[in-house]
Formats: sequence, structure tokens, C-alpha cells
Amino acid sequence: MLALGGNAMSGADGVARPDDQREAIAVAMDSVAELVSEGHEVVLTHGNGPQVGNLLYTSELAAGVVPPTPLDWCGAQTQATIGMLVLDTLDQALATRGLPVPVAALVSRTLVAEDDPGFAKPSKPIGRYVQQSEAALLVEHGQHWREIGARGWRRLVASPEPVRCLDFPAAKALLTAGFVVVCSGGGGIPTVRREAEGYVGVEAVIDKDLTAALLAEQVLADVLVIATDVEAAVLGFGTPGAHPIGDVTTEELRTLASEGHFADGSMGPKVEAVTRFAERTRNIGVITSLPLIAQAVAGAVGTRVHPVSPA
Amino acid sequence: MLALGGNAMSGADGVARPDDQREAIAVAMDSVAELVSEGHEVVLTHGNGPQVGNLLYTSELAAGVVPPTPLDWCGAQTQATIGMLVLDTLDQALATRGLPVPVAALVSRTLVAEDDPGFAKPSKPIGRYVQQSEAALLVEHGQHWREIGARGWRRLVASPEPVRCLDFPAAKALLTAGFVVVCSGGGGIPTVRREAEGYVGVEAVIDKDLTAALLAEQVLADVLVIATDVEAAVLGFGTPGAHPIGDVTTEELRTLASEGHFADGSMGPKVEAVTRFAERTRNIGVITSLPLIAQAVAGAVGTRVHPVSPA
Repeated sequence: MLALGGNAMSGADGVARPDDQREAIAVAMDSVAELVSEGHEVVLTHGNGPQVGNLLYTSELAAGVVPPTPLDWCGAQTQATIGMLVLDTLDQALATRGLPVPVAALVSRTLVAEDDPGFAKPSKPIGRYVQQSEAALLVEHGQHWREIGARGWRRLVASPEPVRCLDFPAAKALLTAGFVVVCSGGGGIPTVRREAEGYVGVEAVIDKDLTAALLAEQVLADVLVIATDVEAAVLGFGTPGAHPIGDVTTEELRTLASEGHFADGSMGPKVEAVTRFAERTRNIGVITSLPLIAQAVAGAVGTRVHPVSPA
Repeated sequence: MLALGGNAMSGADGVARPDDQREAIAVAMDSVAELVSEGHEVVLTHGNGPQVGNLLYTSELAAGVVPPTPLDWCGAQTQATIGMLVLDTLDQALATRGLPVPVAALVSRTLVAEDDPGFAKPSKPIGRYVQQSEAALLVEHGQHWREIGARGWRRLVASPEPVRCLDFPAAKALLTAGFVVVCSGGGGIPTVRREAEGYVGVEAVIDKDLTAALLAEQVLADVLVIATDVEAAVLGFGTPGAHPIGDVTTEELRTLASEGHFADGSMGPKVEAVTRFAERTRNIGVITSLPLIAQAVAGAVGTRVHPVSPA
């Protein structure tokens, strides 16, 4: 199970222009094809931060004329556009290597609890920055906005805990049939279950690393790899004494996390995701950068979290 | 293989508001669940006209601020939002009937030829109507616009022939595993194959009925049903002598089509789709309305095109 960051799939400036996205995803898929060539069965998930921010902003700008797009719909839309680019570029990377492995991308929902505390206290910043006057207006319309540093105000949305990947059976069936499967993009479409209506999408975003841990558990993955832009999780990040974490137990990593070593909304959820996966499945979770995945799984680089002390 | 119209999945006024789409799709999925309860294995595809029109307009309105969304990306996005609504509402309709049948929705591409004559002569009207002055401006930007009746000018885009449903193997694998599968929504994401890059999306729309005929052939469907808002294809539509077509051979239907009985962009492509399917597979193609599908397949109502004269 491999989770790719949404930032890794946009331009260097963080703007998710179509051509930049395709180019970045093609680079990532070259690494994924390499894993496939080594015989790994791969389930892929991905973030969508810059992409969903663009769609939300687009919808807001057009809202007077075209019915606005709810946040869960924006998330769904990024599954399709990123999924399409993965299909195109991974097909090509596999064909270049002479590997006749098919790829499939699923529209996929993640169940969340309607009474998740995240809904009462929106905490995840998304989309564009605005000035205070505009934020005040949007707060009057029921949205949550907060001043975030010098760039201005940013919308906060609910980020509930993922409970179940609803479309995991399709991912499992495709995996069994020999496909590389793209599933639960952007953490999955946030969905609640209501008595009368059944499943219904809700306006929220789900942390893609936590969903990746859940999906990895559901598909019985041997290893969960969170690919990011650094080689490993780091102690004392940004200080002179900074050093990467190599092999570590879930207990040790939980202690380090509780000591505040990992930033919220950045390395924090990645550490939480690999720790949960290792605790629940007794398998290994890995944090590393995309080009180093194969080496990291083999134990040469990256952070590897073990359910017990490594031998 | 069942193809649903895009108009059937939006509000009565043709505006694709999120709640209206969910409501309309829930009604359609009740009929689909009924088919499943009768023991049919179902592959589902759908149109996306109103939905893609909205997205394109949204993108145009925001184009000065957010990178514009290419037309193929808009099409992909509608696969995800409609797919999500089908998953939610069909899950519910099946659960209500006590049917433990899983549903999956695929991001799916359709191969077209880069030298398809459709690219040289864009002919498919999509999106909003504008005044002549605005159309003239957009023509200067390389787009094609045409005056269409009293409502004004409308953009014309290429509508190339579908050559192959690229993601049909995933649909087939899911079908084999017992899923109801949603595939090739909006006719599939228009995709060409280039020597250096492999598969690449292109700005076009593909007729969803023609893609449905192709997918039906690829998944070896027993029957192709084009669900529309009338009970059957009609001779002399809109005249006092109008009467529905019941059982008909492919040859007879081709003759009627060549005599101009079926409108371009409306009944025309539906007739072409069922005729192609029946010619290529020697199976039966059906045109009818959604609530009548089961009866139409059984031969009681609707238009049924046969590869040879029905016994």
C-alpha cells in the first residue's frame, strides 16, 4: 500500500495546473512501475490538497451563476482527474518496461461518523488565502476561517477520522485480478450513513495518510509506505542536531510523537498512520521519499516502524 | 449493458444542482436495483451533458484566477460525482431489497483516433448559450461557436468516434467478481495514443450511446439497453401519424435512419448505437424508458432491434 502526497503531484509552486500535474505524476509513476517490476502488488492512494483547493476556489468564483460544488464533490472530482493521469502515465511507465500489468482507478468513499468531533470544530485549512474583510463575510455565511500567518485568512473544514473504506471490496477484487489499483484518493469521499437515505457525502476532508493506513489494513497489505518529500521522519527537524529516524518500534514512535517531534498536518499524521498500521496488523510501516521506496522497504534508508523491536 | 441519459440525472429544468442530481439518480437506481433483483448482471454507463456544461462554465468564469480545466478533465470529474451518487443510491436501493450485491465505479477512458474527422469539424454543442459578441471573442481564442436558435450562441466541440474502452478489463474483472459496474460515464474520457507519451486526454466529448455499444461488445453483453425519456423510437415523431417502433431488424432500422426519421444528437445516436451492437454481436439492442426496461427486454414494450427478423 503506497500513499503519495498531493503536493508531489502539482507544480513546484504548488499550483495544480493540468500540465504540471501530469508531469509530476509521470515522475511518480516511474517509481511505482519500478516497484511493480520488482514483483510487488501495489495499491495506490494519493493526496489532493492543491487540486481540491483549486476546485473549491473555482466553484466560489462562479457561485453566483452556476450551482456551487460541495466540498465532497470537489474531492470526488480530484479522484477522477488524478486517477486519469495515473492511468495514463502508469500504463506508459509499465509498457516502457514491458510489464503487461493493468491499472484501474476507483471512485471511492470513506465512511466517517456523523458525530465525529471534527464536525463541531473544523480544523483543517484548505484552499486560498483571503483578506480579513472577505473572511468575515464568509464567516457570516456559516463557514469557518482563521488567520494563518502573514498570508492572510484561510478556510477551516472538518477533518473527521476515517472509519471504513466503503469501496475496499472493489479494490480487493481488482487486486486479486492482477491490477494496480488507485483507491481512496484524497482520503476518500467523506460519507456518512443515515437511517433513511443510506450513504450520503458530507462536506469535509479526510487525512489521506490515515485513510491509507485503514485501506492498507482492509486489503491486508504487507507494508504501508507513506511517500513524502523527505527521506525519513526526523528528530529535531530544522535544528542543528536534526537526525533521521531509521528503525523504530510503535511504542518508541508514539513516545516521540507525544513529545511534539512531528508537526500537525505535516509529519504528524504520517507518523500516526504508519504507527496505527503497524499496531493493528503487526506489519511494517515506512515513511520515505518516492525514489527511495524500494531501498526503504529493504531497510537501507527511510523510517521503518515495527510492531516490536527489529531483530 | 445499460446506458442512462445525462438529462435523466439532473433537475427537471436541466440544471444539474447537486441535490437534484442525487434525487434523479436515486429514482433511476431504483429501476436498476429492480433489474439486479431479476438476476441480471448490470454494467451501467451514463451521459453527462448538463453536468459537463456546468463544470465548463464554472472553469470559464474562474479562468482569470485559477488554471482553467480542460474539457476532458471536466468529463472525468463528472464520472466521479455521478459515480459517487450511483454508488450511494444504488447501494441503498439494493440494501432495501435485501440484495447483497456490491457496486463499483471506475475512472475510465475511451480511445479515439487523433485524425478523427470530428477534430477538424467540431459539431457537438455543449455548455451555456451566449450572445453573439461574447461568442465572437471566444472564437478569437480558437474556440468554435455557432448560433443555435433563439437562445443564442453555443460552443461546438469535437465528438470523435469511440474506438476502444481502454479500461474495459477492469470493468470485466469487477463484473466477474459479482459487482454492478459503472464505466465509461459521459462516453469515457476522450484519449488518444501518442508514440512518445502513450495515452493522453484530449478536449472532446464522445457520444455516450456509441461508447455504450462499444463497451457492451467488449464485455460480451447479452443485451444493450439505451434508456431515454420515451418508451420507444418513434416514426414520424411529432406528427399526427407518429407511431412507436417495436421489433425491427438492423437493416430495416438503418433504412429508416437513412430516411431521416431520427434526430441528430437525440434519437439518431441511440438508433445507431443499438444497430451497431446488434450487427456486431448478433444480440438484441433495446431503446426504451427507464421504468420499462424489464418489460422491454421481455418484448412487451419499447424498440428492439434484432440482427435478423425476430421469429
